[in-house]
Amino acid sequence: MINFRTDLALERRDIYKKANNISDEVDGLETQEEMLGEDIKITRVKVLNENGEQAIGKKKGNYITIDIKNIKVAGEDDIQKASEAVTKELKTLLANLIGAQDDILVVGLGNLYVTPDALGPKVIQDIDITRHLLTYMPDVLDKDTRPVSAVSPGVLGTTGIETVEILKGIVDNIHPKLIIVIDALASRSIERISSTVQIADTGIIPGAGVGNTRKELTENTLGIPVIAIGVPTVVEAATIAADSLDLFIQKLQQEAKSNDFLNSLQEENKYEMIKEVLAPEDYNFIVTPKEIDELIENMSSVVARGINFATQK
Amino acid sequence: MINFRTDLALERRDIYKKANNISDEVDGLETQEEMLGEDIKITRVKVLNENGEQAIGKKKGNYITIDIKNIKVAGEDDIQKASEAVTKELKTLLANLIGAQDDILVVGLGNLYVTPDALGPKVIQDIDITRHLLTYMPDVLDKDTRPVSAVSPGVLGTTGIETVEILKGIVDNIHPKLIIVIDALASRSIERISSTVQIADTGIIPGAGVGNTRKELTENTLGIPVIAIGVPTVVEAATIAADSLDLFIQKLQQEAKSNDFLNSLQEENKYEMIKEVLAPEDYNFIVTPKEIDELIENMSSVVARGINFATQK
Amino acid sequence: MINFRTDLALERRDIYKKANNISDEVDGLETQEEMLGEDIKITRVKVLNENGEQAIGKKKGNYITIDIKNIKVAGEDDIQKASEAVTKELKTLLANLIGAQDDILVVGLGNLYVTPDALGPKVIQDIDITRHLLTYMPDVLDKDTRPVSAVSPGVLGTTGIETVEILKGIVDNIHPKLIIVIDALASRSIERISSTVQIADTGIIPGAGVGNTRKELTENTLGIPVIAIGVPTVVEAATIAADSLDLFIQKLQQEAKSNDFLNSLQEENKYEMIKEVLAPEDYNFIVTPKEIDELIENMSSVVARGINFATQK
Amino acid sequence: MINFRTDLALERRDIYKKANNISDEVDGLETQEEMLGEDIKITRVKVLNENGEQAIGKKKGNYITIDIKNIKVAGEDDIQKASEAVTKELKTLLANLIGAQDDILVVGLGNLYVTPDALGPKVIQDIDITRHLLTYMPDVLDKDTRPVSAVSPGVLGTTGIETVEILKGIVDNIHPKLIIVIDALASRSIERISSTVQIADTGIIPGAGVGNTRKELTENTLGIPVIAIGVPTVVEAATIAADSLDLFIQKLQQEAKSNDFLNSLQEENKYEMIKEVLAPEDYNFIVTPKEIDELIENMSSVVARGINFATQK
Repeated sequence: MINFRTDLALERRDIYKKANNISDEVDGLETQEEMLGEDIKITRVKVLNENGEQAIGKKKGNYITIDIKNIKVAGEDDIQKASEAVTKELKTLLANLIGAQDDILVVGLGNLYVTPDALGPKVIQDIDITRHLLTYMPDVLDKDTRPVSAVSPGVLGTTGIETVEILKGIVDNIHPKLIIVIDALASRSIERISSTVQIADTGIIPGAGVGNTRKELTENTLGIPVIAIGVPTVVEAATIAADSLDLFIQKLQQEAKSNDFLNSLQEENKYEMIKEVLAPEDYNFIVTPKEIDELIENMSSVVARGINFATQK
Repeated sequence: MINFRTDLALERRDIYKKANNISDEVDGLETQEEMLGEDIKITRVKVLNENGEQAIGKKKGNYITIDIKNIKVAGEDDIQKASEAVTKELKTLLANLIGAQDDILVVGLGNLYVTPDALGPKVIQDIDITRHLLTYMPDVLDKDTRPVSAVSPGVLGTTGIETVEILKGIVDNIHPKLIIVIDALASRSIERISSTVQIADTGIIPGAGVGNTRKELTENTLGIPVIAIGVPTVVEAATIAADSLDLFIQKLQQEAKSNDFLNSLQEENKYEMIKEVLAPEDYNFIVTPKEIDELIENMSSVVARGINFATQK
Repeated sequence: MINFRTDLALERRDIYKKANNISDEVDGLETQEEMLGEDIKITRVKVLNENGEQAIGKKKGNYITIDIKNIKVAGEDDIQKASEAVTKELKTLLANLIGAQDDILVVGLGNLYVTPDALGPKVIQDIDITRHLLTYMPDVLDKDTRPVSAVSPGVLGTTGIETVEILKGIVDNIHPKLIIVIDALASRSIERISSTVQIADTGIIPGAGVGNTRKELTENTLGIPVIAIGVPTVVEAATIAADSLDLFIQKLQQEAKSNDFLNSLQEENKYEMIKEVLAPEDYNFIVTPKEIDELIENMSSVVARGINFATQK
Repeated sequence: MINFRTDLALERRDIYKKANNISDEVDGLETQEEMLGEDIKITRVKVLNENGEQAIGKKKGNYITIDIKNIKVAGEDDIQKASEAVTKELKTLLANLIGAQDDILVVGLGNLYVTPDALGPKVIQDIDITRHLLTYMPDVLDKDTRPVSAVSPGVLGTTGIETVEILKGIVDNIHPKLIIVIDALASRSIERISSTVQIADTGIIPGAGVGNTRKELTENTLGIPVIAIGVPTVVEAATIAADSLDLFIQKLQQEAKSNDFLNSLQEENKYEMIKEVLAPEDYNFIVTPKEIDELIENMSSVVARGINFATQK
């Protein structure tokens, strides 16, 4: 299988199409695009069957990508508009899976102390929690309020516990009907860093995009549906270097017309070789905009508001 | 029962003795003091039986108070010395309860975003976690390393879930043999704020000191022994006002010799009246040193190191 | 002079009136009240002359207090409404002092790492800065944009430099026409903590409210007008204890009708005595709501927006 | 001139030597190496004259590079050892420039809220400040204590004021004899990120490494000697891509023996082309280890301690 080096179904589809010279749709996928005004583009990729699963390495289900232009300079209005797009898509998925007052647990994956990985815990801070109020102060809430609870379970490196073990325990004790998991993703394209939201109804495998696979968080392991909301915050350094090489070689070919040797380059696995060069010892080098702290604040607001409005009323 | 307005067994004992004019030991308690150098005082209060339990409202068990002078201006050396005192006391308690390689879960209670309540989550950041390494990379560790894991479960107000529900779930999934819970406490005395550590082998009832009782975290509810490590970070504003009144009236009495009316004051329940005056709407007013951020950093280091050295080797 | 233990002109006026049994206005002051909806009350105290100055220990000039109810649970709307009140009052003061495009320097006093003292630096983060854009990228701005710059000079304890020395240097180099200084204040009343904004056109003396006087930041020392925007974030612990005593004694008197001895208590300087008791070593004990971190976030938004809209257009 | 894309004199020397096939020393430079134990390497590059200045684009003066291996997993001991190396080199430079009790101002450049740029402000938090104590409490200090003060002036984007304007004002008011400026740098090599300290007695030009030149902070502009302490925290994304290309082409050449076309590639200016591809809109893409938050904490401790011990006694 192709090493996609991205968590986004949409990017995987594009890479697969290019690698296989497919001009229309990939067999086993269904894709639909929509623009909201000038700045927000929604792409809904549906993986229909095993063909689709094998093509892009993603489970059968819905993968909705919301691309927001210019989120860096986002004002209050842009954040509101982007969050409304999240709300709308999320509401549709929720309505397919559970009832309007069914209990939801929101889970913020990631490490608050590692900036590009802090999105999940930051979103949790802003989620409107109602579960305890329904128990202790029901009078302060509308009577059709949905119980919502939220946790930031930490990461394996700082807890020593697999996330799935922590969540399984909580699910067994508080019996939510659905989990929404928020996570920082790796993308292939630097333009998407902190300007894209992917919503999927298939759960997630934490760390899938960057190669340190943890146990999956899905209906298989947790027993209830899992919606995953992901925001790309990094591109691997080796990815960017390899992509640069491709671009460079393409350009040379255009100029040189034909060159057998260069053609052969294209087929080499540059990525592995570059990764070796770029990854001394045990660091994970990432590419990120210098403004990552601010971008993550903006995207946390987008996701938290998107969830808050989708879960109530 | 007396409203002690402190989580510290030692302070409760002193208040009980004073209120009942007891000059030696309270029936049902046993107390032992030790000085470590000039700056660290250890007081071990043992609640022996029901008499002791009823006197100070604390369960049968051991309550060790470590008072550290001048922690505000603490250098590296003072923090190290204080943490060694924590290590020594904790080691003794651990040896009584579990084997040298038995699995321990460390739990940091409190809210990272509320300064006086952030101690627990801050300690968790500095705990040496080994449980996952023993699974994935056993070769990097000594072969007699104890599995240690850690979580910050958040607080009811931000998760919507009782802490005991979260912990019960984790305990059922990862089967530790003992839990160490870290929490910020309320004390009666402002001198003790962030300069005292209490270690107890009886578990804790979160929020017991300030009146918003949550379900207890003890062997009863969790099925395994629970050691509680607490650090006072606040005094209730009403406590300080009431204590000031007492001091004031004492002074007046000394000057006025006798005064029937003032004597009668002493017996009134000033606290409730003052609390009413001091607690408008739903705020919790607290008294804290302005330097609380820094003090909590220092005490987090003391507690984290104390635990790290007590749990290994 | 009375030890007011508050930085708010309005509270000082009230205390002075009570202490001197004045039922209408204090000689040398002029006061005007206005309600904005149900939740925002504006009180404008004008110190007219030396009489007024001596009565409340505040310089001749305007002191506008904006009290906001329920800021703790403030949503986006409440923060917006409160900030509009700040904008309106600030605009009036600015129009009296400088031209519509005159250069303004905004200064955030306080220590970012001491929660109750962090308001000033936090506001600075959110100020819209235009001065450098007018120099380097004038095309991106409207042509009547006012140059605004901002600094957080730190506090004497962490810089070793008097704030006035730092500001004087900057003023001499960049020549603004007016300074807006933001600072955390001490108030007398706990209800006002982080729910009140005071705007004054007389500059400020940092730390005036809690007794560690620094050199003043006024037109005298800086050569240009100084508008001070202050938000109470603490009450001194001794203040609250002394006020509790007063309330307590009043209540006793009501019950006991007359009691010569208690009457005499009222006149004693309880504050000094209590302060001695309450202030061991060199800590500054303060009373603050436990929710202080969140309240300061809300009030930072109110003040920053208030300034941003007042300085432009 | 070569586009070095690094702030480190040592890296520039290496790049210059390679580009010009120089096997021994560059004319106009003098270099000396020293190992401290196994983990710390010190390289002292002296720019002797105009020849040296033109070769590497750095002013006449001393550039000392301290490379620390394995700082990522640094314990207390490693941080101490590295800081001692900083102290030793800094002391030598200070002794050449000012007297033992001459006043020093420490300046932390950068933006606290942008992780890879936060080093300067973080170091300032840990500097031992004495200037105000010498004025207000001289008795608590040894009588030969040197006055040290410190500021974090912020960055142009958040203050609207050139750093040199702020510093000039402060220097004119408090008259220090020397300034130590701390800044985050760009390096060419990812291994050096947060594991290298460069100390130079020539001052600095903020942002020189990444192309957004600000006005210089040197004896020319400030009137007193300026020592610069820099730590690389980022590599430009385009740098890494270009370097990857070079490595790739070298490898191909080794395999292909000779290939005229590939040889010609080496001479093209890949960097500009790649930069165009890699820098959409106005982001600054950087490469950084995911662990950057923690690395910056460690390096802040190294630099702060290094300065604290060098400035006193």
